[in-house]
Amino acid sequence: MSTVTAQADSYLRTRALGARDAARKLAATDPSVRDAALAAIATAMEAERDAIYAANTLDCEAASTLAAKGEIGEPLVARLDLRQGKFETALDMVQSVAAQPDPLWQTQRATELDDGLELFRVTVPIGVIGVIFESRPDALVQIAALCLKSGNAVLLKGGSEAAHSNRILADVIVRATEGIEGIPAGWLTLLETRGDVTEILGMDDAIDLIIPRGSKDFAAYVMANTKIPVTGHTDGVCHVYVDAAADFDKALRVAIDSKIQDVSTCCTEETLLVHADMAEGFLQRAIKELGEAKVLIRGDERVRALPGVNGQVEAATEEDWSAEYLDYVLSVKIVDSLEEAIDHINRFGSAHTDTIVTEDKAAATRFLQGVDSASVFVNASTRFADGYRYGLGAEIGISTGRLHSRGPVGLEGLTTYKYLLEGSGQIVDDYSGSDARPYTHKLLDRQWTRVS
Amino acid sequence: MSTVTAQADSYLRTRALGARDAARKLAATDPSVRDAALAAIATAMEAERDAIYAANTLDCEAASTLAAKGEIGEPLVARLDLRQGKFETALDMVQSVAAQPDPLWQTQRATELDDGLELFRVTVPIGVIGVIFESRPDALVQIAALCLKSGNAVLLKGGSEAAHSNRILADVIVRATEGIEGIPAGWLTLLETRGDVTEILGMDDAIDLIIPRGSKDFAAYVMANTKIPVTGHTDGVCHVYVDAAADFDKALRVAIDSKIQDVSTCCTEETLLVHADMAEGFLQRAIKELGEAKVLIRGDERVRALPGVNGQVEAATEEDWSAEYLDYVLSVKIVDSLEEAIDHINRFGSAHTDTIVTEDKAAATRFLQGVDSASVFVNASTRFADGYRYGLGAEIGISTGRLHSRGPVGLEGLTTYKYLLEGSGQIVDDYSGSDARPYTHKLLDRQWTRVS
Repeated sequence: MSTVTAQADSYLRTRALGARDAARKLAATDPSVRDAALAAIATAMEAERDAIYAANTLDCEAASTLAAKGEIGEPLVARLDLRQGKFETALDMVQSVAAQPDPLWQTQRATELDDGLELFRVTVPIGVIGVIFESRPDALVQIAALCLKSGNAVLLKGGSEAAHSNRILADVIVRATEGIEGIPAGWLTLLETRGDVTEILGMDDAIDLIIPRGSKDFAAYVMANTKIPVTGHTDGVCHVYVDAAADFDKALRVAIDSKIQDVSTCCTEETLLVHADMAEGFLQRAIKELGEAKVLIRGDERVRALPGVNGQVEAATEEDWSAEYLDYVLSVKIVDSLEEAIDHINRFGSAHTDTIVTEDKAAATRFLQGVDSASVFVNASTRFADGYRYGLGAEIGISTGRLHSRGPVGLEGLTTYKYLLEGSGQIVDDYSGSDARPYTHKLLDRQWTRVS
Repeated sequence: MSTVTAQADSYLRTRALGARDAARKLAATDPSVRDAALAAIATAMEAERDAIYAANTLDCEAASTLAAKGEIGEPLVARLDLRQGKFETALDMVQSVAAQPDPLWQTQRATELDDGLELFRVTVPIGVIGVIFESRPDALVQIAALCLKSGNAVLLKGGSEAAHSNRILADVIVRATEGIEGIPAGWLTLLETRGDVTEILGMDDAIDLIIPRGSKDFAAYVMANTKIPVTGHTDGVCHVYVDAAADFDKALRVAIDSKIQDVSTCCTEETLLVHADMAEGFLQRAIKELGEAKVLIRGDERVRALPGVNGQVEAATEEDWSAEYLDYVLSVKIVDSLEEAIDHINRFGSAHTDTIVTEDKAAATRFLQGVDSASVFVNASTRFADGYRYGLGAEIGISTGRLHSRGPVGLEGLTTYKYLLEGSGQIVDDYSGSDARPYTHKLLDRQWTRVS
């Protein structure tokens, strides 16, 4: 048994180190090479559609059997199914990722240090990325496409319920790119077991970033069990604050849409804060409309004491202020000032997405600056916090971390940068000491260009 | 004893949580407030110069006593001394940090999502930063100034040899900023003991970034003992590669300056790689000149077999290729191709700074793209890898990490970003379903502006 484990370890480690080599080669490829590889993936998926459907059917049938016994929920079965439009969506996604501008070797800043000595800060891939995703097999296609476009090698682990689908999709993708000159072998590895995940979480010398997607418990587990940087989010406790200077109708629309447009997302409103000056009239109406939409309200004492809401509001407990319901439940609290709202959000929120409804531009600025979250909105639904809606193209995930990337993460979040300095024989000794040559430090409006 | 420890824990934790509050307030300050605070620091330091010198004298005398007994080195005594010009340099640094452009609330990208629905990605402070620095007390002033300018709260721990100097400097800085309207109390805390450091390394819920400065062993210790993100570097194993198409004189200047301009820095050349076509003539001359500069050469067998270098080259062992000598020692190896040089650097280097000397622009591109280091140069000394030389102003440290910041880190590396969305009541329901309103996703050439 120990021999088997040792062999398995050695296989994955070999793959991870191979991914590092592949990533270095991928980094230097022309964008046309990566785009050709993406086109080949789309073509191969189309050609292998029947085989992919057959594998997916095995997963769906197994899941249906479990669902019939009540061992898993029906929504999981639906998420697994590629055959009802998700296959087409995945194909479209590959093409739309290919159509994005090249995220690599873009100049972020160019500085002349001296005549003939020019410094460029350019975008480069992060390197080797481990992505552990939920059971949707279409996510595998999206993640592979985003990593390939951004020049990163990827180790992928999907849900075990989608094992047949994931295996054939990974196989089709790898074989499609094998035929493209310039794409290195080993850029994508599919992991099969939970033990594989445990093992890669320990490879902080070989993997540069882990992206956990799926349940918040799993994301929290990953964050607690690896020294590798993690991009992801656990809780999404998002707030709508209706300011004293809010427009009544805007506030109603935003408060309701943020809750019910989709109750199960990380950017769904979980707490509604209302300024005392607006509370009575606004909450009477909002609680009525939310009730008609089947939303259960949990309010503080002041909310419960409002005339006309009698019996429609349960008592909120301290736990409600930090609860992520992901359900038709909303906690509601009355605050006496903008500052109290900001403090409440910073204390109980999850730094994900929070919105103020107000016509007072100075209040809006104080909220935008004071709320310490990845996305902070004025007069707009929290549900806008999404890579596609932000215009980032496809999204690899949402980050509530503070470093490198925050909020929805698209292709750019899969890059980092390096400095390139182009000189003509300059040495530091000439710029040191009493007769030091001065630096010019002039910003240049130029892109770094490669010569081949 | 346990009571004392519990009290100490509680004090530091209170300070760290207070730093979080302070950071949130500092983030929203006008740049004029932070610049006024920096000016007040400079004025107070000038006014307290005698007291600061007196405290510094205590540290220097204690260190001199230890040095006389041979318990510490003379260079450490010199590093401690503020009185021989370092005080003025620290004052200049405060003023030059104040003169930098505001790093906060700068728009990185503005996107119109729809008419009247505009998304801004703006820079914001990271939050609470822990900096553990070497014995130079002037570093405290520089770090405090950089953190204040960038709106971050800071927990600072200096070397115990500089305890008196650090204590008075921190006290002068904190008192100077107490008088500035808008600067929150608690933005700077001085830690006093190693136990304090151990404690803050465990506060991953309260501290956003740790910056260890000083020995590589200490940086490695910090990286291994905290879940907080770390910006720093351990090894600096930097290379100069002399290509087949190198200009002989440029190669000689760059190879020698990279080694001897200052042998003790992290961007000092530790290995010289030479293409076989250039090796004989170039190495005969380079080894002679390096020998005259008292540099000990450790070469591979091919270097040792060159005519005319007999007896001047020790045999390099495998360990030499990854050694950071920080001394008058250089390992030298002959390679047969550009690719062999790139592979050697990626395998044995520390991803810090590496340079190619060549007149072949395509070779330069392959090196710049293929070497996976934070700074990659063409025809320039490795010693240019420095925040001041890069035009970043003062430098908080150098990062060999891949995420968030790489290479020299200035004010910008102390910021992250958040998304601000300004709407007029938009809800996601209108942009969903079969009659969905489309997004415009138009890039805007506009800065986000605050209204007060």
